[in-house]
Amino acid sequence: MRAISAKPIGIFDSGVGGLTVARSIRKELPNEDIIYFGDTARVPYGNKSRETIIRFSKEIMEFMMSRKVKMVVVACNTASSFSLANLQRSYPIPVVGVIKPGVKEARRLSRNGKVGVIGTKSTISSRAYEKELARSAGRSYSLYARSCPLFVPLVENKLVRDQVTYRVAEKYLKPLRGKKIDTLILGCTHYPILKTVIGKVMKGVMLVDSSLAVAKEVRRILQRDGLLSGHVKKRGKMTCFVSDDPGSFRDFSGIFLKEKTRVKKAVL
Amino acid sequence: MRAISAKPIGIFDSGVGGLTVARSIRKELPNEDIIYFGDTARVPYGNKSRETIIRFSKEIMEFMMSRKVKMVVVACNTASSFSLANLQRSYPIPVVGVIKPGVKEARRLSRNGKVGVIGTKSTISSRAYEKELARSAGRSYSLYARSCPLFVPLVENKLVRDQVTYRVAEKYLKPLRGKKIDTLILGCTHYPILKTVIGKVMKGVMLVDSSLAVAKEVRRILQRDGLLSGHVKKRGKMTCFVSDDPGSFRDFSGIFLKEKTRVKKAVL
Repeated sequence: MRAISAKPIGIFDSGVGGLTVARSIRKELPNEDIIYFGDTARVPYGNKSRETIIRFSKEIMEFMMSRKVKMVVVACNTASSFSLANLQRSYPIPVVGVIKPGVKEARRLSRNGKVGVIGTKSTISSRAYEKELARSAGRSYSLYARSCPLFVPLVENKLVRDQVTYRVAEKYLKPLRGKKIDTLILGCTHYPILKTVIGKVMKGVMLVDSSLAVAKEVRRILQRDGLLSGHVKKRGKMTCFVSDDPGSFRDFSGIFLKEKTRVKKAVL
Repeated sequence: MRAISAKPIGIFDSGVGGLTVARSIRKELPNEDIIYFGDTARVPYGNKSRETIIRFSKEIMEFMMSRKVKMVVVACNTASSFSLANLQRSYPIPVVGVIKPGVKEARRLSRNGKVGVIGTKSTISSRAYEKELARSAGRSYSLYARSCPLFVPLVENKLVRDQVTYRVAEKYLKPLRGKKIDTLILGCTHYPILKTVIGKVMKGVMLVDSSLAVAKEVRRILQRDGLLSGHVKKRGKMTCFVSDDPGSFRDFSGIFLKEKTRVKKAVL
């Protein structure tokens, strides 16, 4: 029988965005095998309801359990906002989301205690970031939240440095600039791709790409539970599954993952 | 037993967009009952593959059959492009798409034989409009096609007359302006909402909103098959079903339908 520690880490997202998280985990833990699931037939999640997101997340968890993963990373802010607690209660393996690590990192960075967060409509309306910040002990912070629903379609249409994207960013971020935040959490896995544009509009503000913090959290939990892969020399395998055609995911994954990967179809 | 003619017309779309078609059918045939299905849990369709769209369309057809509709209107250009022939082969009731009526109307309007069509990525890549135009007898036309993938998210985020939308329209439509088309098919049910902006950029070009032509086609087929509703005095009932939360669909439907409607949830 295969030792639990030798089993893969499962990572899921509504589509390609979660590959930014996968990439950070690959860097932090290069020996781990990874099973990635992108729900490309039902993407995006960011404008859908709590109930629907929980239903989709559970279907993906069942897929992950059938692939015998040792841990699951919910690499999607919307799914983390709505379904993380539910998944943690319902499954016997560790389930890690992206909200808590992002908040932790923002607390570490902010000097003036004014933190911004941007995300999809659903993520922002869930108030998951506010709740997480309220839960953490110590100094109190002011949080300013803003949804940026066009950022995902802009990235998915490869308008990463386009004038249109710059204008949309201006429109969304102006109110946050007025709040004098010094730290901004990029609360959606697509947003790190727009770092340049967001950075221009929010000059002088520190941008938190939660994927790095998530990778560290994954290492911490695997270590705590004695589940780190024993392979010290071998580079871990990564396999992606998608619910729509693998072709366009394959074409697109490079922007996010910066390496080639196997992509297969899996209808849930 | 209820006469077939007294049964409702089924209309489906990936989301709210098809309500522009429902509205035209309500105007053309006010006595007909209507069952509308919007697949809001899996919206949008416009960037998904042929195989996935056919799978979704068949699931919705099964729902329509269970509601005992006398006819189905595929009020989504992407679903019409990919799955219409398949549905027409597989079901014993008339199934009407939006491509053919749109092409017919464009042929009627165009003076110089140069016609443009805009649609989602999937609709344009399917070449359904080219094929339909090639099938029609008579004078030959030149067709210029262009995908406008950001138009749907712009409408869904209510940026209908925003400066950003105007810029995006300029970007997408400039190449069509260069082709000297005199007629432009709005090949996506969301696009009639952007008529003002599109009309500004394409000054002097006739815009084809296929929903009117579809409504006429629906009347023609019901008449031909003796299926027009016998109710001459009563206003037909309309019920909408959606796969995600009814709340946001309800809020949003007014822009498209211009009347209040009942909305229920139906997970397929």
